[in-house]
Amino acid sequence: MNDAPAITTVPVKLGDRSYDILIGAGLIDRAGAAIASRAGSVRVAIVSDETVAALHLDRLTRSLSGAGIDSTPILVTAGEKSKGFATLEAVTNAILAARLERGDVVIAFGGGVIGDLAGFAAGIARRGMRFIQMPTSLLAQVDSSVGGKTGINTAHGKNLVGVFYQPQLVLADTDVLDTLTPREFRAGYAEVAKYGLIDRSDFFAWLEKNWRGIFDGGPERTEAIAVSCQSKADVVARDEKETGDRALLNLGHTFGHALETATNYDSARLVHGEGVSIGIVLAHQFSTKMNLASQDDAGRVEAHFRQVGLPVSIGDIPGELPSAEKLMDYIAQDKKVARGALTFILTRGIGQAFIAKDVPPSAVLSFLQEKHPT
Amino acid sequence: MNDAPAITTVPVKLGDRSYDILIGAGLIDRAGAAIASRAGSVRVAIVSDETVAALHLDRLTRSLSGAGIDSTPILVTAGEKSKGFATLEAVTNAILAARLERGDVVIAFGGGVIGDLAGFAAGIARRGMRFIQMPTSLLAQVDSSVGGKTGINTAHGKNLVGVFYQPQLVLADTDVLDTLTPREFRAGYAEVAKYGLIDRSDFFAWLEKNWRGIFDGGPERTEAIAVSCQSKADVVARDEKETGDRALLNLGHTFGHALETATNYDSARLVHGEGVSIGIVLAHQFSTKMNLASQDDAGRVEAHFRQVGLPVSIGDIPGELPSAEKLMDYIAQDKKVARGALTFILTRGIGQAFIAKDVPPSAVLSFLQEKHPT
Ligand SMILES: NC(=O)c1ccc[n+]([C@@H]2O[C@H](COP(=O)([O-])OP(=O)(O)OC[C@H]3O[C@@H](n4cnc5c(N)ncnc54)[C@H](O)[C@@H]3O)[C@@H](O)[C@H]2O)c1
Ligand SMILES: NC(=O)c1ccc[n+]([C@@H]2O[C@H](COP(=O)([O-])OP(=O)(O)OC[C@H]3O[C@@H](n4cnc5c(N)ncnc54)[C@H](O)[C@@H]3O)[C@@H](O)[C@H]2O)c1
Ligand SMILES: [Zn+2]
Ligand SMILES: [Zn+2]
Repeated sequence: MNDAPAITTVPVKLGDRSYDILIGAGLIDRAGAAIASRAGSVRVAIVSDETVAALHLDRLTRSLSGAGIDSTPILVTAGEKSKGFATLEAVTNAILAARLERGDVVIAFGGGVIGDLAGFAAGIARRGMRFIQMPTSLLAQVDSSVGGKTGINTAHGKNLVGVFYQPQLVLADTDVLDTLTPREFRAGYAEVAKYGLIDRSDFFAWLEKNWRGIFDGGPERTEAIAVSCQSKADVVARDEKETGDRALLNLGHTFGHALETATNYDSARLVHGEGVSIGIVLAHQFSTKMNLASQDDAGRVEAHFRQVGLPVSIGDIPGELPSAEKLMDYIAQDKKVARGALTFILTRGIGQAFIAKDVPPSAVLSFLQEKHPT
Repeated sequence: MNDAPAITTVPVKLGDRSYDILIGAGLIDRAGAAIASRAGSVRVAIVSDETVAALHLDRLTRSLSGAGIDSTPILVTAGEKSKGFATLEAVTNAILAARLERGDVVIAFGGGVIGDLAGFAAGIARRGMRFIQMPTSLLAQVDSSVGGKTGINTAHGKNLVGVFYQPQLVLADTDVLDTLTPREFRAGYAEVAKYGLIDRSDFFAWLEKNWRGIFDGGPERTEAIAVSCQSKADVVARDEKETGDRALLNLGHTFGHALETATNYDSARLVHGEGVSIGIVLAHQFSTKMNLASQDDAGRVEAHFRQVGLPVSIGDIPGELPSAEKLMDYIAQDKKVARGALTFILTRGIGQAFIAKDVPPSAVLSFLQEKHPT
């Protein structure tokens, strides 16, 4: 208590649905007190995956019971495959079986898969329960836990089914990231860099210099997470339901989602952040091809992602991939597509991303054929 | 066109989510024009059940194509059992497979089961599509199509999973009710009478006199539907998400839902409106037992429901039923229960329903044991 480390607070301003993101070391141990002080005497369901639960669930349960809060764990298999209808049904039923009432709390305790899945279940169980995000992956701390998008995948594509459902609190314990595999840490890093590439060229330059401190758990880590959360919170406050600007956050995601669909959400081959990494590099290269951005900027992005150990091209994905034509098909089914013309996030250079509404599908296809000859 | 019959419009006032309910004969034939004038050039998925589709789908499809609107039918089996996760998944996937975009339209064309199911699917497909209700049962026209509650059932109880999702338009064609079975028509009538019993004793008295005209398709039918929609719209405008007053609409439903769960949603034994009919009679009798309402008022309600041919007691349900204790268990799991004390809709007499927050579970149990000795 006395030597409690500093906590950074990032507010998300959404009128009567505003909430705080708390970021800091050792936050799990303070979760019980934080929840009790906000929500009073509630019961809690903790949705987590088996990997995260084995490493960190005990500490969370103890923190809650220390504050007089009973909790029921609801565990699913780790990995993207849990983001589907079958697991959604199981988790929702488990929340009902635990006899939680509308004012009780569902905690998402895990990476982005758990956040998206548990958030969706919390949004539909009893037409909406209280919901708290406790992201445990870097990707979830800097991106998926903030902003209220929840959802699952179907055979038709990523995240095509879900609800907008804001959490009432986000608790990001930075220590917990130490148990993440280097591969998953890197994947999350792609989303951190994304904020620099959208509209903060200074931040991207800072990352080029300071990325080692972020990976090693230096003070740069908390700093990078806070800047990322602030970037996302700003965008979400401007455009909660993605009728405009929020689409910028999809930089790299149209290509990335198509690659995830093409690898059948098989985490052994490709995880979300890796798809985003390749997608961001492709988006810069495509922007170059469209004479929008310089070759230099595209090269700088590719070099940085390669340096931190991220995949940067379609060829970096192990195993067989469907043809460029098939990838194009997945892109057309992605939700950022409006009636024939493709909406894409393109860029004029580092920190200068924009929403392009009239990208000719033929240009994308020929670019893909070049990047992925079969 | 020239001799188009009169249409009654009931507005639902919900700020930027406001919409109109149009009520009248032959509205199906005018649906295409009504939708085209509001939504422009959209594509449409029509969710319906096999019974309704066989009777009326052709007319709707023709009306749409007459206005230049392409539509894809998505059909499910008729009956309450379709309101579950499996069908929700199938319908949602069918919407995606039809390649509808966010601005395209999902039409619920059927009774309350279709409205609740299709509304839920429309609310989660691409995190929310345009949605239009075309209710074809009396119950759906006077109740379920208005107000934005959508959902499905689970083993834990009725409507425990869903979203609040408002339609952009409700089109109630009163002619279509002529093909409804007398049993389903009666079931819907229980919800019409409910509005009188909540807070419009004049309307209930009018129903006692005019119910035959409603059943026979006289001008009383449109009148009764319009009054019902107006009643519901008023309540919903005051309290969209049921944090207060809206709970009054659950008059009879806590008992009713328990009976539906107890009969495993088997429409052959009990349909929703029949459960509501029995539930409303029980709510009046229980209010009498609690010395809140007069025996006369409870008797008047029972007599009217019996006169129109509705079931009025637990014993009217064919087949075996679980014990009073088990029914009590279902009640405790119903969503209108807050932490130990039961919240019930009770009444001080006809047109004087109120929300009672501290009903002792023991009183309900002993009342049930009396009404349902096993
Ligand atoms: N909702 C949004 O706005 C949004 C934004 C971006 C991404 N997403 C979604 O997020 C998902 C990707 O998130 P993710 O990369 O966190 O995936 P994830 O949840 O699968 O986590 C990745 C892996 O790391 C493990 N893990 C998590 N925390 C750990 C820890 N502290 N120690 C050890 N292992 C740990 C998990 O068990 C899993 O195996 C995708 O489904 C993506 O679509 C959503
Ligand atoms: N969302 C809400 O606010 C709300 C309110 C009340 C009830 N409900 C729900 O509504 C459902 C009950 O609605 P319902 O009684 O309409 O059930 P339903 O949809 O099952 O319809 C009843 C039967 O009538 C048939 N039918 C419908 N229209 C017909 C027509 N014009 N001609 C011939 N047959 C027709 C159907 O095929 C079905 O067999 C329940 O699931 C209940 O929970 C929801
Ligand atoms: Zn992402
Ligand atoms: Zn009802």
